[in-house]
Amino acid sequence: MNKVKKGDIVVLIDSKNGKYFINTEGNTDKYKGVGVIDPGFFVGKTFGKKIQIGNKDFWIFKPSIIDKLQGIKRRAQIILPRDAALIIMNCAIESGHTVLEAGIGSGSLTIALANAVAPNGKVISYDNRDDFIKHAMKNLKKVELASYIDPKIKDVTEGIDEKNLDAIIIDIPNPWKAVEYAWKSLKTGGYLCTYSPLISQVEQTVKEIKKQSFIEVKTMENIHREMVVSDRGTRPSFNMLGHTGYLTFARKIL
Amino acid sequence: MNKVKKGDIVVLIDSKNGKYFINTEGNTDKYKGVGVIDPGFFVGKTFGKKIQIGNKDFWIFKPSIIDKLQGIKRRAQIILPRDAALIIMNCAIESGHTVLEAGIGSGSLTIALANAVAPNGKVISYDNRDDFIKHAMKNLKKVELASYIDPKIKDVTEGIDEKNLDAIIIDIPNPWKAVEYAWKSLKTGGYLCTYSPLISQVEQTVKEIKKQSFIEVKTMENIHREMVVSDRGTRPSFNMLGHTGYLTFARKIL
Amino acid sequence: MNKVKKGDIVVLIDSKNGKYFINTEGNTDKYKGVGVIDPGFFVGKTFGKKIQIGNKDFWIFKPSIIDKLQGIKRRAQIILPRDAALIIMNCAIESGHTVLEAGIGSGSLTIALANAVAPNGKVISYDNRDDFIKHAMKNLKKVELASYIDPKIKDVTEGIDEKNLDAIIIDIPNPWKAVEYAWKSLKTGGYLCTYSPLISQVEQTVKEIKKQSFIEVKTMENIHREMVVSDRGTRPSFNMLGHTGYLTFARKIL
Amino acid sequence: MNKVKKGDIVVLIDSKNGKYFINTEGNTDKYKGVGVIDPGFFVGKTFGKKIQIGNKDFWIFKPSIIDKLQGIKRRAQIILPRDAALIIMNCAIESGHTVLEAGIGSGSLTIALANAVAPNGKVISYDNRDDFIKHAMKNLKKVELASYIDPKIKDVTEGIDEKNLDAIIIDIPNPWKAVEYAWKSLKTGGYLCTYSPLISQVEQTVKEIKKQSFIEVKTMENIHREMVVSDRGTRPSFNMLGHTGYLTFARKIL
Repeated sequence: MNKVKKGDIVVLIDSKNGKYFINTEGNTDKYKGVGVIDPGFFVGKTFGKKIQIGNKDFWIFKPSIIDKLQGIKRRAQIILPRDAALIIMNCAIESGHTVLEAGIGSGSLTIALANAVAPNGKVISYDNRDDFIKHAMKNLKKVELASYIDPKIKDVTEGIDEKNLDAIIIDIPNPWKAVEYAWKSLKTGGYLCTYSPLISQVEQTVKEIKKQSFIEVKTMENIHREMVVSDRGTRPSFNMLGHTGYLTFARKIL
Repeated sequence: MNKVKKGDIVVLIDSKNGKYFINTEGNTDKYKGVGVIDPGFFVGKTFGKKIQIGNKDFWIFKPSIIDKLQGIKRRAQIILPRDAALIIMNCAIESGHTVLEAGIGSGSLTIALANAVAPNGKVISYDNRDDFIKHAMKNLKKVELASYIDPKIKDVTEGIDEKNLDAIIIDIPNPWKAVEYAWKSLKTGGYLCTYSPLISQVEQTVKEIKKQSFIEVKTMENIHREMVVSDRGTRPSFNMLGHTGYLTFARKIL
Repeated sequence: MNKVKKGDIVVLIDSKNGKYFINTEGNTDKYKGVGVIDPGFFVGKTFGKKIQIGNKDFWIFKPSIIDKLQGIKRRAQIILPRDAALIIMNCAIESGHTVLEAGIGSGSLTIALANAVAPNGKVISYDNRDDFIKHAMKNLKKVELASYIDPKIKDVTEGIDEKNLDAIIIDIPNPWKAVEYAWKSLKTGGYLCTYSPLISQVEQTVKEIKKQSFIEVKTMENIHREMVVSDRGTRPSFNMLGHTGYLTFARKIL
Repeated sequence: MNKVKKGDIVVLIDSKNGKYFINTEGNTDKYKGVGVIDPGFFVGKTFGKKIQIGNKDFWIFKPSIIDKLQGIKRRAQIILPRDAALIIMNCAIESGHTVLEAGIGSGSLTIALANAVAPNGKVISYDNRDDFIKHAMKNLKKVELASYIDPKIKDVTEGIDEKNLDAIIIDIPNPWKAVEYAWKSLKTGGYLCTYSPLISQVEQTVKEIKKQSFIEVKTMENIHREMVVSDRGTRPSFNMLGHTGYLTFARKIL
């Protein structure tokens, strides 16, 4: 039966694509965007069917990875799903892989990576700030992906303990300082990715990558554009994010 | 030991990122980009170490998903890895899922989907042309992903046999004709994606999607830009693909 | 002497690039962004030298065309300077030309056209709404370009009176209805331009253009991106306008 | 009468938008794209009317500025009309202005500037290479704009002789070395523009601009996209130039 069971964590979506995570075993409380409610209310409701709370319409779903990425609480600037998708593809990350990311930030990329390596892989997440790890792990628990993560309070520019990693993703202000450690810790043919908003960061990183043994070095950016399709006609959205970050990829050789 | 074993299928990469697949049990033959060679030559070679054939340098790797996508033989216009990555992310496709695509084309998206649902998922691939299915399955065999595919000679605009699918991706000239069938065959909360180069195709498809029960309807395009990073400085590449296709996504509700 | 004289219309620019037009013969009044001031205060001040009013810094300039375009009061969606620049270039508009635009909107494109045809050319501006013409002409007077304009309360889809025009620019919701009239009123080799936010508008217009005798038919859009250059490094601005309008150009043949 | 007269310089346009300049007083010769022809053949022909030469169709026009820009012979990388349009707009260049450019390159920007300042303005063109000046001036003569140009064999990084210029446009590999001279030679409120393909050039230039007295400093790029509008539907062109150059603008204050 496609009904909500006691213990399920569900996502509510409103008509403006607002997304709200609810633990059906949680306490009666004020849930942001939904109002004061006893989560037990949702038990027995049918997934995908419209329900009304107050004067607002919602649909309940089992959370998908895209819900999980859109539902997290942000503290730092996050890596958006579109960039996470490119990272996973260009780092060739797949089910069963062991990958390392640094830093963990709000856990956004962490969630995408956890989902990509599940059910048998592992994500090792470095961050030198304990509070970021705590905040990110809270997000990961909420979306039921915490079990795939090995969090470590550690600065990646001081070394990487693990070996034979399938991929390493660096999202810190000085990624070039982690490049040599990354080379040592990657498996042969494994991928390094760095994510940087500034051209000067890209330049320093590529310079360091070229000193090490890597091939297939490339830097790219995604300019993402929503289209507005209505009865009046179609046009690109006026509302557009002009930049996220540059993605640099490289692959280890001997 | 990180050495090539007899029976391995390996990828050779040259210094210009040309990629060539070799079956180490294949016959002595002319391999495009490599020359006439006995594939047994590669057995015992070390992965990631430079080898010379004629006057060209190569590195041997176990093929990654990105190698697999770049190494296929094209017959039709293919869906590029960057768009495949966005499709997988926005359709929330993950290990264990059952997804349907139509048509199979050259099998490019098929490879990306197979890799994403592995090791326990399934890709059902419709195409109304037998020759496309044969060509695509040859590509899938070459990259050792054929076992995840159920190919079907069938026109998706005439119906979909399967039910409870996690995602359906439509890449045909008239995707709107498959929208109603897609709704019926998706699980609740499952995702539909259509890929179309033309705005008029997007408009007809979105019109049909709005007639059915879907939420989170959105259309987007990726404008992908490589950056050239050299000792002289950094700039966007002059060489740029101006368009691939518009991606429309929607999620089934009851 | 580079000093403000009585009677000058000047522009004040603040440190955040806010621009404020002042008629030095105006009355003491509250000037938006500047405060309550007697415009006579500016007489004798040196152009380009910093002056303080209250606790804000300003520079005074003789208004350039870019000041004039940025200083107008908007009522309708305006054509931005970047698009006006492309229109003037691709319609080959130059000093001495006679050009027609419809509608006048807030007079933004009108200002750019007036400046381009000065000192001996003419801009004929159609609009079917008297209030738009009044508002636009007020903007044109403020920037001292009104003398180049012949405003006409007229719907361009009902005909064009003038003949032998160098260029015609149409910015109305149904530009295709003016295409045939435009052909009749252009000189041989003259240019038609239509500006439309929606693809469907472009399609209907191009269809009509192809029925008439035009060559060099092309449609384009400008994706304009500011770069943020700071001591920390350089990146594209996060803040970006995703779309303005599509520009279609065509050239009259016999 | 709209007919070609003896002595006219005309442009021929073929059905693929190829453009060919012909001096009707020239000798019988092989004209690229047209064939061997006596230019006297065109005298008396009607502007805008199709004529056949061999098995190809042509239309004759009095050259517009856009013809002139598209018809020049290139030696160096040129500044495209779309960027020239933005330069003219953002430097507020208009009829009667005196502007300086360095270097002259193939004379592409020179043509656009000459047309913008005509009939009473002046373009001063520096280049340290005599052969570039000769080549560019040949292009300018062909399009009848040479009389607006003062060419000078001079390296702009060694100083600028002129004073009180309305605008200065620098297109050399090291524009930052001309910034201080540019400040000294601009009128108050005049505009400096530098055109550079590389981010590092932009950074050095902006750094130097900030040392001098300039306001309204901004850097931008144009991502120009053609749309293909056909009976089948509309889409962005696959064929796209990924980058031209970054444009930096600044305005002189005291």
